[in-house]
Amino acid sequence: MTGAAIRVSEIFGPTIQGEGVLIGQPTVFVRTGGCDYRCSWCDTLHAVDSEYREQWQPMSAEEIWGEVRRLSGGVPLTVSLSGGNPAIQPLGPLIDRGHGEGYRFALETQGSVARDWFADLDVLVLSPKPPSSGMETDFAKLDECLAMAAGRPMTVLKIVIFDDHDYGFAKDVAQRYPSLSVYLQPGNHTPPPPDDDSATVDIDGVMNRMLWLVDKVTGDKWFDARVLPQLHVLLWGNRRGV
Amino acid sequence: MTGAAIRVSEIFGPTIQGEGVLIGQPTVFVRTGGCDYRCSWCDTLHAVDSEYREQWQPMSAEEIWGEVRRLSGGVPLTVSLSGGNPAIQPLGPLIDRGHGEGYRFALETQGSVARDWFADLDVLVLSPKPPSSGMETDFAKLDECLAMAAGRPMTVLKIVIFDDHDYGFAKDVAQRYPSLSVYLQPGNHTPPPPDDDSATVDIDGVMNRMLWLVDKVTGDKWFDARVLPQLHVLLWGNRRGV
Repeated sequence: MTGAAIRVSEIFGPTIQGEGVLIGQPTVFVRTGGCDYRCSWCDTLHAVDSEYREQWQPMSAEEIWGEVRRLSGGVPLTVSLSGGNPAIQPLGPLIDRGHGEGYRFALETQGSVARDWFADLDVLVLSPKPPSSGMETDFAKLDECLAMAAGRPMTVLKIVIFDDHDYGFAKDVAQRYPSLSVYLQPGNHTPPPPDDDSATVDIDGVMNRMLWLVDKVTGDKWFDARVLPQLHVLLWGNRRGV
Repeated sequence: MTGAAIRVSEIFGPTIQGEGVLIGQPTVFVRTGGCDYRCSWCDTLHAVDSEYREQWQPMSAEEIWGEVRRLSGGVPLTVSLSGGNPAIQPLGPLIDRGHGEGYRFALETQGSVARDWFADLDVLVLSPKPPSSGMETDFAKLDECLAMAAGRPMTVLKIVIFDDHDYGFAKDVAQRYPSLSVYLQPGNHTPPPPDDDSATVDIDGVMNRMLWLVDKVTGDKWFDARVLPQLHVLLWGNRRGV
């Protein structure tokens, strides 16, 4: 295993995956540093804003692998590759290494950067950002991500929803990719400031948005969608490393 | 479509499935009345205790089907067959009827009564009850349920956990059926009294049990299990019909 250094913001677990298709599943997170997006409501600014760059450790795939193996006690599980945008890091060698020991890999990305190693993943979560993020989705890039995945990993869409515009965006995206399962997630309008993970989350606000979203989806008869909150936020608020 | 009358406690939705493998998925619930168990912490006594029998409407499969179709606006979705123990009702004709219009059916049962129509389901959730329920699992019956399903529906285990004894039971069950996915669910120690669905749920208590369970599972390196709370309890407390 060789390859360029990977910028790592944090490695933690095992804990459970808090959202989307793997919700409730034990996992170790590898959160990479750096992102080509700046979403207005980003909930992991400590892994995005270059102001925190000095906290991102350059690590080899072998070093990361050693830490994942240590945390999981050498018992294979699903590793969650997250960010920032993990697609901007050279993760192919890490995936190969883990597969050799029976581990699985799930990656979540906005789909702005496509990599040939997407095809080596077990789960690919494409999470294009809705209008409230302030970002614009390049659908040609999203198409390219799917082309790179080549139908090999289980691939799903996960879309964060804050308001009616976001909801409309989610419907459009779902229509564009009818073969992909769609997970809708109420946004957290009280994300953690990067320097203060004890900052309070407005759980009632998040839950009210969840209820609103359930009503939207069922009222619309969008029965193929799945609506899930961020379980880790309900359990741990904005606390990091869990 | 013919067949004997089905005793129905309530039909409601669409809402989202709050627990287990279909968590977050829009569904209409058909809750049947009557149960061969009396779990100490039963959270649907209004569909179990024969004291409430006069509230259970005997309905034909055709009548139930009409209500499901009305609630879902004729748009196919997954119907959740729940109880009580729905396996003691003659649900085969209802399933056939719904399949004819593209609907899917998920059934949850403790696995104490096996039916040949289990093979017609799309999802079968076997939920053997742990020691804290006061019930004893007849594993020969559970085996029979699996034999009846004949590998056709997606079949999973869901086990409610209150304490260490329950956890040990869950591990034993998982070991007995290594090919089935396991969903673990922290118990609600403040279930609704059957006559008062506005009674308060101790959400903090449920969440603390969830956190304990996550620690157990990850500490044990039981990485194949999935740990999920009852989302509907977090969203709606003990309220019925949502």
